Amino acid sequence: MDSVNYPELLSNKLLFERTRLLILSYLMGQENQTAPFMEIQKNLNLTRGNLSVQIKKLEEAMYLTIKKEFKDNKSHTTAKLTPAGMKALKSYLSDVEALLSNLK
Amino acid sequence: MDSVNYPELLSNKLLFERTRLLILSYLMGQENQTAPFMEIQKNLNLTRGNLSVQIKKLEEAMYLTIKKEFKDNKSHTTAKLTPAGMKALKSYLSDVEALLSNLK
Repeated sequence: MDSVNYPELLSNKLLFERTRLLILSYLMGQENQTAPFMEIQKNLNLTRGNLSVQIKKLEEAMYLTIKKEFKDNKSHTTAKLTPAGMKALKSYLSDVEALLSNLK
Repeated sequence: MDSVNYPELLSNKLLFERTRLLILSYLMGQENQTAPFMEIQKNLNLTRGNLSVQIKKLEEAMYLTIKKEFKDNKSHTTAKLTPAGMKALKSYLSDVEALLSNLK
């Protein structure tokens, strides 16, 4: 018998997309769970378009908040992980850990 | 600075689909890495159609092999994880572990 309840695992479809999972994980590892848009794009090697689309979906789910401001006459956008985003990410990762623990 | 090389992580798109990841993980946890089709369908709570489609994709990638035989006049299909499938799954899971290890 398996101790893992497979149908319950990884049911959060929003996180089952590589870019979205990486964005949340990246933010989670940053000071104050916040990072500039440009830094995320560079470090995750994403196109501006893909990052914009995925960030918007994560914002709609209230997993992160976006802040736009002007710095030296340039627009500067940052994303910050919310407690809900953190919870979703932790839940996703603990599901993967459950899978891992079951492997012989 | 981050020690995790995000662009390199989870680049195997074939495994970035919930059902496929669960199928491989399930097989990995079974005796001889083999399970009957019906058992996988039941324990992962999948529709017959979804399981067929995803099993076929995994077979095409040579991550598993399908064996059909007759038992008591009933067709009996089993799936077995291949070494390539095992390698892909382990690589995927170690990437998730790398993400986990980076979280503050």
